[in-house]
Amino acid sequence: MGLVNRDEYEKLRTKALELFDKANIILTEEEKDNVEVADFGLGKIENTGLQVVTYVNTDLVCAKELALLPDQTCPEHKHPTREFDDGKEETFRCRYGKVFLYVEGKPAENLSAQPPEGDGQYYTVFNEIILKPGEQYTIYPNTIHWFKAGSDGAVVSEFSTRSTDEDDIFTDPRIKRIPEKIL
Amino acid sequence: MGLVNRDEYEKLRTKALELFDKANIILTEEEKDNVEVADFGLGKIENTGLQVVTYVNTDLVCAKELALLPDQTCPEHKHPTREFDDGKEETFRCRYGKVFLYVEGKPAENLSAQPPEGDGQYYTVFNEIILKPGEQYTIYPNTIHWFKAGSDGAVVSEFSTRSTDEDDIFTDPRIKRIPEKIL
Repeated sequence: MGLVNRDEYEKLRTKALELFDKANIILTEEEKDNVEVADFGLGKIENTGLQVVTYVNTDLVCAKELALLPDQTCPEHKHPTREFDDGKEETFRCRYGKVFLYVEGKPAENLSAQPPEGDGQYYTVFNEIILKPGEQYTIYPNTIHWFKAGSDGAVVSEFSTRSTDEDDIFTDPRIKRIPEKIL
Repeated sequence: MGLVNRDEYEKLRTKALELFDKANIILTEEEKDNVEVADFGLGKIENTGLQVVTYVNTDLVCAKELALLPDQTCPEHKHPTREFDDGKEETFRCRYGKVFLYVEGKPAENLSAQPPEGDGQYYTVFNEIILKPGEQYTIYPNTIHWFKAGSDGAVVSEFSTRSTDEDDIFTDPRIKRIPEKIL
């Protein structure tokens, strides 16, 4: 299963553990053995991917640690309304490195931010939020966002409502959010 | 307001920051300046108290870091049903030191754990859970619990549903859970 083969999985897992170590995050052996590697189905995981350790995911609360390789991107997506709530709400707190976070916002008052005359295409205006260690940002449900690590990679703690990755809606229709844990 | 005077607050804040530092937790200057110190109204805070940094507390999700001084105890309490939910659910993850957590459980099969004949008093049976760095435990609503740090103190990350400390029910009727942030 999955698009990541075992060698690639081991390589990414090792890199993720190095990042967690730089962030001084202590994991159990079981957590270390089961780092989730998500390649989003694009087959270029060192550019577009994410390494994840999920501490807890109950009906109500989820906490994860995310490791991003240098310049690695988690692609544009949103967390839509679900049967049991209005969609996942999540707070990202940077622990190591730097994270460039782009969150759907309102068009600026400034006219240059408006779609050009006659363009006719819908486009999303993003606010850029740069998170350094100790800084955080909360993303509410149904809000389009994406993020990218700086050149040293990044470690981010995520505090959220229940996580159901399979519900996420990605802007790029080629993307499938399948956990790529190879066992 | 509060039973902790400014000097005592500063002393406890400094000790909490030392513990967060040992756990390699990076805080903003604002977070460092505003560590919450809870003495539970008992006036013996180094025995019964808690130091807290709240990262986020929305309608749905809360994340905190707790610092416990050596042998300091957070006294027996539970999180009751609230207007908007069944009560606070919380996961404690140890980051530094050792935490002795006592959680209401079922009486053991073993007869010696039953109330002595003729005692007639209600009593709670607790399970002991010892958390070392990287270990965690989830406490569901309406479950009586208390916890105590080991001799080096402890740092614990708490991932929970919305936190409303004023709703907590303490077994000791003298306790008031008032945030003792002296400004």
